[in-house]
Amino acid sequence: MNTFGRNIRLTTFGESHGPAMGGILDGFPSLVKIDFDKVKEDLARRAPGRQAFTSPRKEPDEVEFLSGFNKDGITLGTPIGFIVRNKDQRSGDYDGYQGRFRPNHADYTYYKKYGINEFAGGGRASARETVSWVVGGALCRQWLAEKGVTVSARFIETNSVEQAASAGDSTGGIVEGLITGLPVGVGEPVFGKLHSRLAAAMMGINAAKGFEYGDGFAAASSLGSDSADYMCPDPDRPGEYLFTSNHSGGVQGGISNGMPVNFKVYFKPTPTLMRELPSYDTAGNPVVIPPKGRHDPCVAIRGVAVVEAMALLTIADLIKGMK
Amino acid sequence: MNTFGRNIRLTTFGESHGPAMGGILDGFPSLVKIDFDKVKEDLARRAPGRQAFTSPRKEPDEVEFLSGFNKDGITLGTPIGFIVRNKDQRSGDYDGYQGRFRPNHADYTYYKKYGINEFAGGGRASARETVSWVVGGALCRQWLAEKGVTVSARFIETNSVEQAASAGDSTGGIVEGLITGLPVGVGEPVFGKLHSRLAAAMMGINAAKGFEYGDGFAAASSLGSDSADYMCPDPDRPGEYLFTSNHSGGVQGGISNGMPVNFKVYFKPTPTLMRELPSYDTAGNPVVIPPKGRHDPCVAIRGVAVVEAMALLTIADLIKGMK
Amino acid sequence: MNTFGRNIRLTTFGESHGPAMGGILDGFPSLVKIDFDKVKEDLARRAPGRQAFTSPRKEPDEVEFLSGFNKDGITLGTPIGFIVRNKDQRSGDYDGYQGRFRPNHADYTYYKKYGINEFAGGGRASARETVSWVVGGALCRQWLAEKGVTVSARFIETNSVEQAASAGDSTGGIVEGLITGLPVGVGEPVFGKLHSRLAAAMMGINAAKGFEYGDGFAAASSLGSDSADYMCPDPDRPGEYLFTSNHSGGVQGGISNGMPVNFKVYFKPTPTLMRELPSYDTAGNPVVIPPKGRHDPCVAIRGVAVVEAMALLTIADLIKGMK
Amino acid sequence: MNTFGRNIRLTTFGESHGPAMGGILDGFPSLVKIDFDKVKEDLARRAPGRQAFTSPRKEPDEVEFLSGFNKDGITLGTPIGFIVRNKDQRSGDYDGYQGRFRPNHADYTYYKKYGINEFAGGGRASARETVSWVVGGALCRQWLAEKGVTVSARFIETNSVEQAASAGDSTGGIVEGLITGLPVGVGEPVFGKLHSRLAAAMMGINAAKGFEYGDGFAAASSLGSDSADYMCPDPDRPGEYLFTSNHSGGVQGGISNGMPVNFKVYFKPTPTLMRELPSYDTAGNPVVIPPKGRHDPCVAIRGVAVVEAMALLTIADLIKGMK
Repeated sequence: MNTFGRNIRLTTFGESHGPAMGGILDGFPSLVKIDFDKVKEDLARRAPGRQAFTSPRKEPDEVEFLSGFNKDGITLGTPIGFIVRNKDQRSGDYDGYQGRFRPNHADYTYYKKYGINEFAGGGRASARETVSWVVGGALCRQWLAEKGVTVSARFIETNSVEQAASAGDSTGGIVEGLITGLPVGVGEPVFGKLHSRLAAAMMGINAAKGFEYGDGFAAASSLGSDSADYMCPDPDRPGEYLFTSNHSGGVQGGISNGMPVNFKVYFKPTPTLMRELPSYDTAGNPVVIPPKGRHDPCVAIRGVAVVEAMALLTIADLIKGMK
Repeated sequence: MNTFGRNIRLTTFGESHGPAMGGILDGFPSLVKIDFDKVKEDLARRAPGRQAFTSPRKEPDEVEFLSGFNKDGITLGTPIGFIVRNKDQRSGDYDGYQGRFRPNHADYTYYKKYGINEFAGGGRASARETVSWVVGGALCRQWLAEKGVTVSARFIETNSVEQAASAGDSTGGIVEGLITGLPVGVGEPVFGKLHSRLAAAMMGINAAKGFEYGDGFAAASSLGSDSADYMCPDPDRPGEYLFTSNHSGGVQGGISNGMPVNFKVYFKPTPTLMRELPSYDTAGNPVVIPPKGRHDPCVAIRGVAVVEAMALLTIADLIKGMK
Repeated sequence: MNTFGRNIRLTTFGESHGPAMGGILDGFPSLVKIDFDKVKEDLARRAPGRQAFTSPRKEPDEVEFLSGFNKDGITLGTPIGFIVRNKDQRSGDYDGYQGRFRPNHADYTYYKKYGINEFAGGGRASARETVSWVVGGALCRQWLAEKGVTVSARFIETNSVEQAASAGDSTGGIVEGLITGLPVGVGEPVFGKLHSRLAAAMMGINAAKGFEYGDGFAAASSLGSDSADYMCPDPDRPGEYLFTSNHSGGVQGGISNGMPVNFKVYFKPTPTLMRELPSYDTAGNPVVIPPKGRHDPCVAIRGVAVVEAMALLTIADLIKGMK
Repeated sequence: MNTFGRNIRLTTFGESHGPAMGGILDGFPSLVKIDFDKVKEDLARRAPGRQAFTSPRKEPDEVEFLSGFNKDGITLGTPIGFIVRNKDQRSGDYDGYQGRFRPNHADYTYYKKYGINEFAGGGRASARETVSWVVGGALCRQWLAEKGVTVSARFIETNSVEQAASAGDSTGGIVEGLITGLPVGVGEPVFGKLHSRLAAAMMGINAAKGFEYGDGFAAASSLGSDSADYMCPDPDRPGEYLFTSNHSGGVQGGISNGMPVNFKVYFKPTPTLMRELPSYDTAGNPVVIPPKGRHDPCVAIRGVAVVEAMALLTIADLIKGMK
């Protein structure tokens, strides 16, 4: 439900217009020295209003850690509780939405599932939720760095974001991720394959519509004779191997083979609210949804930090589970 | 690890060249009348050697159910144990592979992870494993049918399979899936989104390299103004809604909205073994892998039955979990 | 690890001498109207210093709910995040303990497991942790009350608490629990039996050394001919049954049979620190542990509220999981 | 549901009067050399009809392993599937029970939970289920032996079994368990305490009514001044510690401290069926249950092997989960 991972588990809570977001990171290893300034840096990369083209909501996103560390910032192996207060709750922005289903939002499906339409309820589907993911990912990044594992991502523009923004419109985009330094053996056979876990993590990000890794979609129209990766001895590490190519995207049989893992996540445009949109309310009456709210012209831009966070959580979880 | 699902859980075992494959389907509802002939039909659709272009291995794939039913074939709500004997163990086919890493197979990664290279061990990565998935899916199909939910899939050819086969080569392919009849409310917010669970299931299938749903990858280059789905009253069910379009692929906020769920899975070509391939053995010596074995020119063809099975297991699991 | 339950899940964090305790209650049903004054009452019953013979630590234990409710206190079905600040952190009380293993505490085992000896680390083993359990249990109590299910517990004195207290000593005690109003069918066969789940919950409470239900230990020396419970029609509910006796403690085959569930939890005395105690420090030197600290002469007294909380969480979890 | 454990997981299936019992042991380590004769010995200790006073059902209980081993009996790290055929299905023995609720059996609670009364359904509550637990435990025993961990149990007689048997009656009994050789650090704080896990495992055994460990129930009437365990250097292992006494039963804060773990399980007498018993059928009519069936005069005798199996599974699971 609201828990991600098996061995390092992030459980989150919070509605975007409630008092706070937060979470518990359980199973994180002891004796990791955390640099809290670096956690702030990861949060800043996700923050709205810090980049051109992203939503002007200007929350500082200050994370308060409530447990899990000694006074020197060294982890104790106990669960790490944290909260991020919602300081910028301008719910007036959302007047006119109560009891009305915003098109292409989760309002309708949540209402049918939980039997209640409160703005705060729809708020679990808000992108604000990802602030907790980034906190969890930032901690995992520092542990993985000790092991030489890095995760990075970048935005690939598909349409002109500036043009979409000035037209009151929004556009989709792509985020490409890269994981390096993985040892051989990360991932579980059958139902816990590394790329399956990664796909689940990425498709759980709001607005993600597609995922590919290695040769990806293109593999579907390729021939076997062009797709093989051959082993070769690693000149730097006697007895270890590299591969002469990386069609497989660093994963074989669901388990890392020591090559980089590369993948892409395809984001749809945010449902634009800069125009009046027709919909219905909980009583069944047709309504017009007013063009208010604060929304990104391209969610994929802020998605970069979120893609990294979810990849970090996925990889840390799998590595912690290895014997 | 070897368990799929939370509320209806399939746990499997078996190496392709051991005595049997099998599994336990736990949490399946009681009082479902199972038509075992239909289970056989689903197995036949997956079976190799039954279709042009697929591997000539001709096992009957007879499933033996060991528990979970009364004498009339009605489920008891107890775990359903089943086995499928491996009758066609021509391990002579694999002479020359012992201790050698077949390129683009899981031999190397399994060896590094488990410290043992036995053919039977690599056998968990065999496509034969999917016979148990199809058994589980076939049972779920019959329960879902009672609820009006259907799952179907079809193969989309990308290259000429016959041409690849006659050249001793293999080709990738696409499988398109469709889920209809879902009620509103299937799927969990945040980390258990319907499409996230579906992505994990599909990417766990051997040779899957990409997954998309709804508008999919194309959404990444579209504009928000062209991507909205608007609600409209369902003329046949007063008080219920349909949507005027289905860009969202039947899912909003991770939860089904009552529209069909459509998705595609992109399969790479099988690593071709019809030629001699260079590799290494466990002692670090370069070896040549002989061109034996039985392999499909296009795994996506048999993948149709497997895609259906995994979608059925995913949806049944989510629906069982609904209150 | 730090999560209790499957369908309604409480995940907790917090060290007794850190800034806060807290948790996330995930899976709690939507549309339950919570009376927060009653939550306070449950917390007050657990609070130290409110009862004769219990530790004089006088924290108000004010719980702050951060998510999961609308403005009217109705649950949204989203995870309920909450924190309880540690206002009374007199860590000076614990001077002389750093790096020293207090006898009969978890200091040594935590140190060996996590490789770190920080007071806050040992703090996960503190009885303060149970404040989060009581918050979770208090919410479950209100949902269960809607269904006619009640949980209560009472303290059974074994030695004179006052006498032990005045001697600077401590004593064990018994807590008896009673669950009424359960429908037939609560509990899962085989590995999730109602009384097995209850035993796990109770034995997870600090200082619990034994658990029994129904006829309990006495059953081990009884005869089958004296132990049978016979069915009889329930005069008030045609078609339903009662039992003429309740040797089985309301559970048959791990599943509730509609009769009250009664059980007892046996608590050891707290390791007394009112005297100097010999031990060792992390460097291997013999040390003397000074007689400071605030401790209960009989933990079973405050254990009453904790036993209720864990029983409430257990029963709510099992009922939520029923179809 | 039908799965025990987190890191080494036993999932079972089978009704006592169906074709077979069986299970999957998933997560068992690779490279363990299994002596299958020793597995047979463990099964023989559980088998009915092999000991005085136990049920005369004489099944050989031959286990067939279907996966998870290479040809030398070395584990592959893949799931271990196994079945035990039910050769002695004398269902004629149970004529007259169909549709009737046997007193003190799970017939009534299963019927209310699953909506079906088939003998095979009630069969999940049969003691025959434990044959799969013993298979799983026997494998764990051999892995734990490599680590110097042993688990043993013994029967403590309370009433004269022979006297009860000859009177057509049954009696309860006690099984005492002992775990030695545990390293420090086994068990998880808070909700996964070693003794909590052990209690859940033991209380899941049919007919178990009580569990205690260390000083157990007696602790409830003891004083703190008499209950302390003090550390002392281990003369054989410099830098390590022993304890001068073992009131705590080898567990502190839920984590093993290196001392032996001792515990007791209290079993009730089997509900005796050697006399006619009054009950009801599914249609609500009063019926008399005939005195057929094969039942043990004291289930605790065979319970020794089952107690060992569950302790082995519990400990192996916790040790596998340690980092």
